[in-house]
Amino acid sequence: MGELRARSVLVTGANRGIGLGFVQHLLALPNPPEVLFATCRDPKGQRAQELQKLASKHRNLVIVPLEVTDPASIKAAAASVGEHLKGSGLNLLINNAGIVKEITLDNETLKNMSDVYMTNTIAPLLLSQAFLPLLKKAAQESPGSGLSCSKAAIVNISSIAGSIKEMYLWEVMQIVSYRCSKAALNMLTRCQSMGYREHGILCIALHPGWVQTDMGNSVGDKAPVTVDASVGGMLKVLSSLSEKDTGTFLDWEGNIVPW
Amino acid sequence: MGELRARSVLVTGANRGIGLGFVQHLLALPNPPEVLFATCRDPKGQRAQELQKLASKHRNLVIVPLEVTDPASIKAAAASVGEHLKGSGLNLLINNAGIVKEITLDNETLKNMSDVYMTNTIAPLLLSQAFLPLLKKAAQESPGSGLSCSKAAIVNISSIAGSIKEMYLWEVMQIVSYRCSKAALNMLTRCQSMGYREHGILCIALHPGWVQTDMGNSVGDKAPVTVDASVGGMLKVLSSLSEKDTGTFLDWEGNIVPW
Ligand SMILES: NC(=O)c1ccc[n+]([C@@H]2O[C@H](COP(=O)([O-])OP(=O)(O)OC[C@H]3O[C@@H](n4cnc5c(N)ncnc54)[C@H](OP(=O)(O)O)[C@@H]3O)[C@@H](O)[C@H]2O)c1
Ligand SMILES: NC(=O)c1ccc[n+]([C@@H]2O[C@H](COP(=O)([O-])OP(=O)(O)OC[C@H]3O[C@@H](n4cnc5c(N)ncnc54)[C@H](OP(=O)(O)O)[C@@H]3O)[C@@H](O)[C@H]2O)c1
Repeated sequence: MGELRARSVLVTGANRGIGLGFVQHLLALPNPPEVLFATCRDPKGQRAQELQKLASKHRNLVIVPLEVTDPASIKAAAASVGEHLKGSGLNLLINNAGIVKEITLDNETLKNMSDVYMTNTIAPLLLSQAFLPLLKKAAQESPGSGLSCSKAAIVNISSIAGSIKEMYLWEVMQIVSYRCSKAALNMLTRCQSMGYREHGILCIALHPGWVQTDMGNSVGDKAPVTVDASVGGMLKVLSSLSEKDTGTFLDWEGNIVPW
Repeated sequence: MGELRARSVLVTGANRGIGLGFVQHLLALPNPPEVLFATCRDPKGQRAQELQKLASKHRNLVIVPLEVTDPASIKAAAASVGEHLKGSGLNLLINNAGIVKEITLDNETLKNMSDVYMTNTIAPLLLSQAFLPLLKKAAQESPGSGLSCSKAAIVNISSIAGSIKEMYLWEVMQIVSYRCSKAALNMLTRCQSMGYREHGILCIALHPGWVQTDMGNSVGDKAPVTVDASVGGMLKVLSSLSEKDTGTFLDWEGNIVPW
């Protein structure tokens, strides 16, 4: 298994939960990224205090404002990241920001369906489009013809709740808008893997486990996986990926999750 | 194989293409439905001429105005159908109306993504919710404990383009917004099958084939299947379904399509 050697990484929804865990783990790597972009909606606000603390200690951490449902915000973030990178590319885009609405099939609403789809599915599409030039540049800068997360990759944080085959924990949480958005995100990941392979960009959907975060604790009542275990596992998985893995759906322990 | 004996059926997007084909085939059955609701956006308009002609010949055909993306229109349609049924239930809801936007991954837009999701995924959810009381009633009226399309069923017209495994004809048409919406519709179908089994309602996703309709001819250049063959095949499949088939994804020839 290789080591993750991405020189530049961007994580969305990085101020808490799994996103914050990614930032902490990436900063602690033996070879941390030269630049780590942690995006959040309000970098100066209360909710970004952990990130601010980290940034005061780590010069390679750059906090970028980003509301993932706002195209203008996405555009501004891509421009700002491009400037920071001073002509070099972005190796790894982690589309992590996401929302869930706990509600039953019978009470599901138009608004929930579209809000959740906007954040969990459309935003990863728009972000990948906006960062595509930087991802392509990273792929061109890297020697060798294979695909890897150290070279150029889009990682979409999906969920086993989006597995149409599994229907994971249906009895505990119906969350239809969430399930539909993540099934669609898995489809998006497959589309991206087909479209971006020729550009040298690996694309993958990851299930982080049922994790002890605000989201994980809001559904059901006993999320079993710690953020540390989840993120540690996912980074190990990411470091091991190659050409053959693009377009797949894996969990934090490297197991294939069925569509 | 049984015969389809649904006493009442509703088809959305019934003024042309596959929806119109369903109406024609259902009217021509040896035992046609006692009431067949054909919905379209503008029953009095130019585009509904075929339906109007049919209605002038078939007293069991009722044309109902329905814009599937408009909750008020859905509510009005459900009320009007309920009145027509005079206390009895609706056996079969065919969510057929759908749209596609031919566009590449790189040019896909927020607006396309949400418009296509609204029509192809959210509308079938809202329609199923609105007609649920009538579907439940139909299930209660039917003797026997199994599930069937003659008793009570939701049929979601999906597409093999929504199969995450297959990535059908990616080289010919990327149509990411469409693929995502149909993958999500497949997930919705699975959710409905889990949620509505206890009410005696069968739920299924059907791929009609690549069919010679306005939509089928607008993507790629040689849709191979006629509307007649597609609809004839789907009705045969529907008539054969039982308990074990709820929550599956089948094509017009009865083959299982992978998620
Ligand atoms: N936890 C689990 O058990 C679990 C399981 C499967 C998959 N996942 C997936 O893992 C990812 C992270 O989940 P989590 O458990 O860490 O959730 P979380 O604790 O609720 O954190 C969600 C993060 O996403 C951000 N976010 C949400 N909407 C945003 C928007 N419109 N613009 C910018 N940022 C936004 C939040 O920012 P704010 O602080 O500003 O709200 C927050 O940083 C999600 O994609 C989730 O679906 C989680
Ligand atoms: N043709 C194929 O090869 C193919 C393959 C796989 C799946 N499908 C699926 O099969 C279904 C029918 O497709 P088709 O080929 O018959 O398409 P079509 O010829 O383009 O007809 C679409 C029908 O849906 C209606 N519709 C669209 N948006 C609507 C809305 N917002 N409210 C009410 N009605 C609306 C249209 O009404 P208007 O006339 O008012 O626009 C029309 O009646 C769709 O779900 C499609 O995704 C088709």
